[in-house]
Amino acid sequence: MVSKWAHFSAIQLIVLYYALAVIFSLILLSFPFFHDEGVELTFIDLLFTTVSAISVTGLGVVSTPDTFNTAGIIALTFVLQFGGIGIMTLGTFIWVIFRRRIGLRERQLIQIDQNQLSMSGLVKLLLKILRTILFIELIGTIILSIYFLNYFDTWQEALLQGYFGAISATTNAGFDITGTSLVQFSNDYFVQTVNMSLLILGAIGFPVLIELQDFLKGDHTRGKRSNSFSLFTKLTVTTFFALIAVGAIAMLLLEQGNFLADKSWHEQIFYSLFQSVTTRNGGLATMDVSELSDPTLILFCALMFIGASPSSVGGGIRTTTFAIMLLAIYNFAKGRSGVKVFGRELDNDDIIRSFIVITTAAMLCTAAVIALTYIEPFPILPIVFEVSSAFGTTGLSMGITADLSTAGKGIIIFLMFVGRIGIFSFLFLIRGKVIREAFHYPKERVIIG
Amino acid sequence: MVSKWAHFSAIQLIVLYYALAVIFSLILLSFPFFHDEGVELTFIDLLFTTVSAISVTGLGVVSTPDTFNTAGIIALTFVLQFGGIGIMTLGTFIWVIFRRRIGLRERQLIQIDQNQLSMSGLVKLLLKILRTILFIELIGTIILSIYFLNYFDTWQEALLQGYFGAISATTNAGFDITGTSLVQFSNDYFVQTVNMSLLILGAIGFPVLIELQDFLKGDHTRGKRSNSFSLFTKLTVTTFFALIAVGAIAMLLLEQGNFLADKSWHEQIFYSLFQSVTTRNGGLATMDVSELSDPTLILFCALMFIGASPSSVGGGIRTTTFAIMLLAIYNFAKGRSGVKVFGRELDNDDIIRSFIVITTAAMLCTAAVIALTYIEPFPILPIVFEVSSAFGTTGLSMGITADLSTAGKGIIIFLMFVGRIGIFSFLFLIRGKVIREAFHYPKERVIIG
Ligand SMILES: [K+]
Ligand SMILES: [K+]
Repeated sequence: MVSKWAHFSAIQLIVLYYALAVIFSLILLSFPFFHDEGVELTFIDLLFTTVSAISVTGLGVVSTPDTFNTAGIIALTFVLQFGGIGIMTLGTFIWVIFRRRIGLRERQLIQIDQNQLSMSGLVKLLLKILRTILFIELIGTIILSIYFLNYFDTWQEALLQGYFGAISATTNAGFDITGTSLVQFSNDYFVQTVNMSLLILGAIGFPVLIELQDFLKGDHTRGKRSNSFSLFTKLTVTTFFALIAVGAIAMLLLEQGNFLADKSWHEQIFYSLFQSVTTRNGGLATMDVSELSDPTLILFCALMFIGASPSSVGGGIRTTTFAIMLLAIYNFAKGRSGVKVFGRELDNDDIIRSFIVITTAAMLCTAAVIALTYIEPFPILPIVFEVSSAFGTTGLSMGITADLSTAGKGIIIFLMFVGRIGIFSFLFLIRGKVIREAFHYPKERVIIG
Repeated sequence: MVSKWAHFSAIQLIVLYYALAVIFSLILLSFPFFHDEGVELTFIDLLFTTVSAISVTGLGVVSTPDTFNTAGIIALTFVLQFGGIGIMTLGTFIWVIFRRRIGLRERQLIQIDQNQLSMSGLVKLLLKILRTILFIELIGTIILSIYFLNYFDTWQEALLQGYFGAISATTNAGFDITGTSLVQFSNDYFVQTVNMSLLILGAIGFPVLIELQDFLKGDHTRGKRSNSFSLFTKLTVTTFFALIAVGAIAMLLLEQGNFLADKSWHEQIFYSLFQSVTTRNGGLATMDVSELSDPTLILFCALMFIGASPSSVGGGIRTTTFAIMLLAIYNFAKGRSGVKVFGRELDNDDIIRSFIVITTAAMLCTAAVIALTYIEPFPILPIVFEVSSAFGTTGLSMGITADLSTAGKGIIIFLMFVGRIGIFSFLFLIRGKVIREAFHYPKERVIIG
């Protein structure tokens, strides 16, 4: 059985699962039973909604509450779970089982556990991931549902809003059933704080959550001091919060003469902080982002392009990739031989891989922008914003999503797909048969920029 | 003497030369003797014009023929020569003399000569570079001046136009004294062909010119078969012409419904070809580029960002850098261990350096775009175009240059400077005291995108 399966590479299986999840969800969401009365979805809009849900992007060509009834909304949350948590855990599972070549993620997993993983150890780890996320979602649902009794007339409505809100935030899906994202809570700092917490817990990466859990439990079974986090965790957590700080401070400064002009100091802080957190991957918003000024929008494009942590529910080039790029540049400028950080040294292969991910993503997004400016009638900024949002699986939009042509929607669907599986997997996917070449040519140096 | 000089690094000396050249040219071009009657230049406009000339960019805040008289125009050509050829040859000279650490360019030079360079050998090489460029400029002047007798009333005017045109094209300066670049020659394919030839000869890189010369002369003294070009030459020439082809074909396709709609087939070809060649570095144009559609303009931004060959009169990240990025991505996607090209293998250090140049440049340009959209009232596309043009030292503009604020002009001046000396030199320049660390930390792998 395994020998037959081993013909597939791990990534091909992830993509296969992804494709099956899309088809299954497409069929699920197409049931008229789940739709509001009188709703007629075109195939491209149904496909767009499905891929947006499976990739937990949240870009929408239709309004969720105007399209799906209560049963449909609950069905949608299952699709979000498939997309956000399912692909990641199953991907991890498949990756570790077929250890034909030990990949990076696997090594990371092994590192987390510090022991050689047995099959039962692996299942235990995956159940731990699932349990952790579902626990976070449960707590979120309870807090939001109870609090929403202040907002909604019936406990059923409050529960539905709290449940959907918690799932959407934790999986960083960016879908909403309010019709206007979190705009109605733009002055409710409690709802915003709960949402930001859930968004961050979902986007910061499973390895971080597990290491944090072990740390809090004082788990000494890992064979090292329980307070020593892995390089990966230190790197991704630092970068994650540094990006949030940069985004919030920049918006605070850049929007003084624009969106924040007439706001009180606490409104200014919460607007800036929430919108910065949401560019990490959430896609929920407490305002209409198209009201922001050009410099803020361009910065947000860059932040969405960077995206969330690896092994999280998020997309983009990932925070570690970005951090490694900055470290490589800094160390090179300083004239150092190796790239040192947190008392560890990075591997040259990881550095080259990071740069490959970044430049491939940049070229892909540039090509998408050129194609979309050719196909669509919109100006360049909404298009760049839409492309960054799709590749980062963020889901923020300046409002052009529903008006895209079928070809335009196809491009965005493709970007959401690539953004979710990651450039690394994408490059593995499109490559042909790998030819292991034993020979080497003589090396020759060339002049660089 | 040398021991005292050796306190400076080679790059610091290049920058020192650059700074001195700017100050000298600033004083030279400020003489009222060189100005048309009644012209009053502000300091920032004079500085902008000087840096634009020294960096052979060609972005203009003032019209050259409306500002400088004939003597001033001739003075300007000397500034262009300082900037285009002077900095490069002097830079090379300094670089090779102070061989405290053998740098990349030096190794390239040695490779060109294949012999250990003696001081007299070096001087010989530099004179060869100078002789080659001046010879190209002379031929260009003669051809254009004679041909321009058809266009201009007096032989003096034809000679001035031919001389300035040849210098501006060969140094890829992008300055014009017609007032409208080459728009008046938009149907004269002879002038365009001469200009394209000069632009390419200037931007393709001195090492290429010298290897080509040796090849044509059948020079066997280099100790290898005269028909074997270096990896550098093969890489940069292939990339250079591939980029021209991509730009021309893309414009031909993208502008069918726009600028090229009412043009004959030969007009379509020459418009596309010339504008593509000029994005390599020239900056001269046979049309108003702001008439192009958004997708073409975005592609041209990318092409200008890439720029010309290393060791040429051009700027940008350089063609080799871009080629190495593509090769690294391709070989990685193919699952190959090393990066092989033209029967040679690239060094990992060169690959990392290329990626560092590209990503640093991209971040610098993004920061400049954010700053300019904040400072200036213009939409994003003209700003991105201006930034790409300045960093690539191309000199094309959608027409906002003269209307930039003083702060905006300062940013463009900075980009022209960095684009000309190159990101590589820029990073060397901003770094502090290099600390050689003997110790190493343990290596730890992390998850990449
Ligand atoms: K999202
Ligand atoms: K130029």
